[in-house]
Amino acid sequence: MVTLYDIYEKIHRLEQQGRDVIEFNVGDPDQMTDERIIKACIRAMRKGFTKYGSAAGEMFLRRKIADEHGTRPENVMISPGSKFSIFAAMDKLLGHGDNVVIPSPHWNAYTLIAERLGARVKLVNTGIKDRWKVHPEAVEEAIDGRTRAIILCNPNNPTSTVMDEKALTEIIGIAERRRIPIISDESYADISFKEVGCMADSGVGNICVKSFSKTFAMTGWRIGYMIASEETVRHAMKLVQITTTNVPLFVQYAASEALDLRSEIAASMRRIYKKRAEEAVRTLGATELAIYRPDAPFYLFPYCNGDSEKLAMGLVDKGVGVVPGTAFGDYRGHFRIALTVPDGKLRKGLGILAGEFARRHPATDKHRGSPLPRA
Amino acid sequence: MVTLYDIYEKIHRLEQQGRDVIEFNVGDPDQMTDERIIKACIRAMRKGFTKYGSAAGEMFLRRKIADEHGTRPENVMISPGSKFSIFAAMDKLLGHGDNVVIPSPHWNAYTLIAERLGARVKLVNTGIKDRWKVHPEAVEEAIDGRTRAIILCNPNNPTSTVMDEKALTEIIGIAERRRIPIISDESYADISFKEVGCMADSGVGNICVKSFSKTFAMTGWRIGYMIASEETVRHAMKLVQITTTNVPLFVQYAASEALDLRSEIAASMRRIYKKRAEEAVRTLGATELAIYRPDAPFYLFPYCNGDSEKLAMGLVDKGVGVVPGTAFGDYRGHFRIALTVPDGKLRKGLGILAGEFARRHPATDKHRGSPLPRA
Repeated sequence: MVTLYDIYEKIHRLEQQGRDVIEFNVGDPDQMTDERIIKACIRAMRKGFTKYGSAAGEMFLRRKIADEHGTRPENVMISPGSKFSIFAAMDKLLGHGDNVVIPSPHWNAYTLIAERLGARVKLVNTGIKDRWKVHPEAVEEAIDGRTRAIILCNPNNPTSTVMDEKALTEIIGIAERRRIPIISDESYADISFKEVGCMADSGVGNICVKSFSKTFAMTGWRIGYMIASEETVRHAMKLVQITTTNVPLFVQYAASEALDLRSEIAASMRRIYKKRAEEAVRTLGATELAIYRPDAPFYLFPYCNGDSEKLAMGLVDKGVGVVPGTAFGDYRGHFRIALTVPDGKLRKGLGILAGEFARRHPATDKHRGSPLPRA
Repeated sequence: MVTLYDIYEKIHRLEQQGRDVIEFNVGDPDQMTDERIIKACIRAMRKGFTKYGSAAGEMFLRRKIADEHGTRPENVMISPGSKFSIFAAMDKLLGHGDNVVIPSPHWNAYTLIAERLGARVKLVNTGIKDRWKVHPEAVEEAIDGRTRAIILCNPNNPTSTVMDEKALTEIIGIAERRRIPIISDESYADISFKEVGCMADSGVGNICVKSFSKTFAMTGWRIGYMIASEETVRHAMKLVQITTTNVPLFVQYAASEALDLRSEIAASMRRIYKKRAEEAVRTLGATELAIYRPDAPFYLFPYCNGDSEKLAMGLVDKGVGVVPGTAFGDYRGHFRIALTVPDGKLRKGLGILAGEFARRHPATDKHRGSPLPRA
């Protein structure tokens, strides 16, 4: 199997030989962190916020987030990245031999965490022909006596679809009836093109995980949070106590500043990615690829009717990095591109892909040759 | 049982009422992080080192550390605090039902991590009358068929003793013969008053854990490292991949600057703490307390011949926070003070303790009334 690392290693090798590769393979925004956020961090460092802090995060930040969601600071946990919150939630819910139900394609980290906990993932496959719809009855069917959690990534990585509200409500109902908590990974929600319901506001005791990484181009700062029951927050806090101790306070001050700037920065990010998404859909829509017009930044997960592992290795030689669909489940015919490169590179990269997938025959398959309609 | 948290909560309550409590209970240096380290961090942020990085740490920093120890970067892992390295090492070595041998008194985190892994700690008690010496034969005796690791904290928290070289060499020999890896926690080694042998330089395949926290007053930055086999580094890296992703790059640049300044900053820290230790030994040596003259910063762990849990709660009312010895093992008669408060507060706090333990009878016990001789 060709992994993300194989692609990365090959790109790294070529770059060391002086080749330029357009890295559509990494979901790391090309924007700089906003200067005001950096300044807030510097102010905090200079004030001496370089010492130990609370394992659950500083109270001022937990309170600020709690206020946004009409909940209490005791229900908010600041974690070193949103992935840590997901890890902690899965760690609390999943024991050896248990399983977690996840719509697929899905972020590989969920699988790695489940494996680490001795748990199994039960994937609910969705398809581009069906506009990546997650069918509630398929989720319910996947649940068995050892199911201890459902993970929803909304908007989804890698498909950039937002779950339709009716389906989401039904799945929340199923989870409630079956007493299975939902872990709602909303890392891309703040910059979604389409509105996304926040699980923390649903009034049910699920676990909502949020990130600063994508909204604020703060991937490397490692800060995220969960909104959950006090019991879940305490569990996560105890994990932090025996591993990372706390998120650096100066990073928490930066995050607080980011929240103050959210509507402005999120709007700007949304604009940038909307424009890029439109360009990508325009360029690739004229090829043999089947494309879903994204509801959110910043991925496309086109269908190429081939072996995306071979394809990905070959594309690196042509100067473009993409991730084979097999990294996200049983999706060998798909690949993921992240629109997280500056506009000039974006155009060039899309051009290379357009050349690779130039239409050789008149379009006969209705799922080819043009973007799928929006749901 | 009175825990660290009970003490902390009580102090917090009093402080909110406007009372001033001298916090000898927290091992967090009062010094600021050096301005040059902060500037290196700021430079890195401004250069855009705010994005994802390698889970094992950036190569330039791993190489710099490897060069210091004559090893390879593949043997170095940068972790979000040294505790994460200890967690990762224990996680690799200890399964359910296994045990780890630890000289006591000991840092509570080891116990919490072992419990989390379903493992047991087998404590090897040491005593102030014996100048906290760790006897190799006692360590060997504690080893059984389920022992998978030995943890040495050198210099020790809470006693501030440096292990004597002969005993250390013997324990390394025992560990080698019994094929049990040593995890050597050397967080206080760089600022020790007495030279400390580095486990990474011992030429045996043990796990050496180092911290930036104490040497550079960088407790809240959350960065440390391990020097270990490639296999152990890979294990730790995989844990980071599913939890924290990476240590922020700007923090790694700050740490790199810190290493460049180490001899200067460590010398200055050593000077500060040596002076404080001497003052503390002078003041408390004239009381009923039995004191070991510390080999390293920044703790004292005196014997008070009473119930340190009750004592600790009572001392808070008198304006001083200390940690009961029960937080470090079977040491109810001891308590820990951290000399990590500014000089004025230090004097005042020591004065309060001196009043509390003023000699009521002429000294009859040779372990009382004066500092123990240095080993």
